[in-house]
Amino acid sequence: MQIIDGKLIAQTIKKEIAETVSSMVGDGKRPPHLAAILVGHDGGSETYVAHKVKDCEEVGFKSTLIRYEDDVSGKVLLEKIEALNHDTEIDGFIVQLPLPDHISENEVIQSISPSKDVDGFHPVNLGRMMIGLPSFISATPQGIMELISRYNIETSGKYCAVIGRSNIVGRPVSVLLSRKASPGNCTVTVCHSRTPNIKEILNMADIIIAAIGSPGFVKADMVKEGAVVIDVGTTRIKSDETKSGYKLSGDVKFDEVAPKCSFITPVPGGVGPMTRVSLLKNTLLAARKEIYP
Amino acid sequence: MQIIDGKLIAQTIKKEIAETVSSMVGDGKRPPHLAAILVGHDGGSETYVAHKVKDCEEVGFKSTLIRYEDDVSGKVLLEKIEALNHDTEIDGFIVQLPLPDHISENEVIQSISPSKDVDGFHPVNLGRMMIGLPSFISATPQGIMELISRYNIETSGKYCAVIGRSNIVGRPVSVLLSRKASPGNCTVTVCHSRTPNIKEILNMADIIIAAIGSPGFVKADMVKEGAVVIDVGTTRIKSDETKSGYKLSGDVKFDEVAPKCSFITPVPGGVGPMTRVSLLKNTLLAARKEIYP
Repeated sequence: MQIIDGKLIAQTIKKEIAETVSSMVGDGKRPPHLAAILVGHDGGSETYVAHKVKDCEEVGFKSTLIRYEDDVSGKVLLEKIEALNHDTEIDGFIVQLPLPDHISENEVIQSISPSKDVDGFHPVNLGRMMIGLPSFISATPQGIMELISRYNIETSGKYCAVIGRSNIVGRPVSVLLSRKASPGNCTVTVCHSRTPNIKEILNMADIIIAAIGSPGFVKADMVKEGAVVIDVGTTRIKSDETKSGYKLSGDVKFDEVAPKCSFITPVPGGVGPMTRVSLLKNTLLAARKEIYP
Repeated sequence: MQIIDGKLIAQTIKKEIAETVSSMVGDGKRPPHLAAILVGHDGGSETYVAHKVKDCEEVGFKSTLIRYEDDVSGKVLLEKIEALNHDTEIDGFIVQLPLPDHISENEVIQSISPSKDVDGFHPVNLGRMMIGLPSFISATPQGIMELISRYNIETSGKYCAVIGRSNIVGRPVSVLLSRKASPGNCTVTVCHSRTPNIKEILNMADIIIAAIGSPGFVKADMVKEGAVVIDVGTTRIKSDETKSGYKLSGDVKFDEVAPKCSFITPVPGGVGPMTRVSLLKNTLLAARKEIYP
């Protein structure tokens, strides 16, 4: 059994990105520039955006944080997005979700130019991914594919069960793993709340991607010997063991499942660190105009 | 066992569309208007476009056929598309595929305004479908969903095997059947050329969608008792039985599979007629601005 070290892989990729930025700057180009729009003061969002800004610094990107109060109008936000779409100094930008109820997230996402949509949430990028065209792939699916790739995990001809059909994890990762590509060529089943025989399906799976946000959902008796288990769950649960009073729990009962696995990701330290690095990769792709030439 | 009569359902839907058009025209509106671009003289394409024009006549749509020779430049074609995008007299249009090798089909598809993309091939429409937003859904997946719906076939909680991962059938129908919707809420597995245990998976399936274009691929021993079998295959094979010297063959060995099924589509007369009617439905939706208000 091998524990997939997402933290280490993320550091390796960051180093690779930093080297690329160095050589870009050495060639007289400006460094990649990511902007982030943050509306309000949600604790989680503050933390995520702070991480993104810090990550940019670490690899030599420029970053710009644009803040609005909770009561910002949709109109003001959309005007800002339109300005960023046309700002040649900004390669890519994100609008941190969730947004206040009076603003339509769908409208916001669709107003971002697909060529600057480094979160990969715009329907154009999802549609292009679906038909195998170059696209910005959202953070978590991209991170999962990268882990599979860096650990040389064989996917072709394998049977994969994805638990969860969300737009940002389950659905896209199911498409990516099933594509005629490498990694890819898996036979993929998407399981969800309406799947009656989930245990039976998981027991067949060579690869399990757990992305439902239900702590400890995947137990040892659901996993076959030698399976690869990727745990996307990150639910905050109360804990006496940590200073903060909470800890992150994955969707997999790690202690009992791990001994059966060929590869498994821990929580934290598995998929999590990879999602942060995906945004950097997309921003670099945007700066080099590799997706939309 | 019930044979799903796609021809009958298609006629019913055409009648419904014709009535809607009548009442639109009665209200002083112009009828929906579909344009089709046909490049060259491919026999199959000629037939398909002729059918589409005839279908429009039958339901009271206006249609315009725009023809180019095989040697038309990509530039001329794209300029025409741009003109159609802005033509307020045209509600929707299609470019009949395949195109000559010197023209990029992807570029052509992406140049069509998503709001007039009644074939549903534009990445925006695929991406919107993926995240559950209103979208033009391409002909075959839409036809399949309509058959399932009109025959009141239960899908929620069912296990569905889709054979084939094409961009225009297998992939989109797998998303539609797995969505949190009705019909939908299936647990879907997408099988393809790299699926080693396809027989095992098909044997578990409550619903089988066969879309690989391999005549007679699905045999009786692959199908469980009571399954619903939707056959999307339409391969021309030589035949002494018909005047034309060929007949259409589905992906399913109908004679041996049908007795085991609760529902099954024949070929011809199953999914085929529904694909033609999907284009009419999308054109009506475009004329009424129901997808993109």
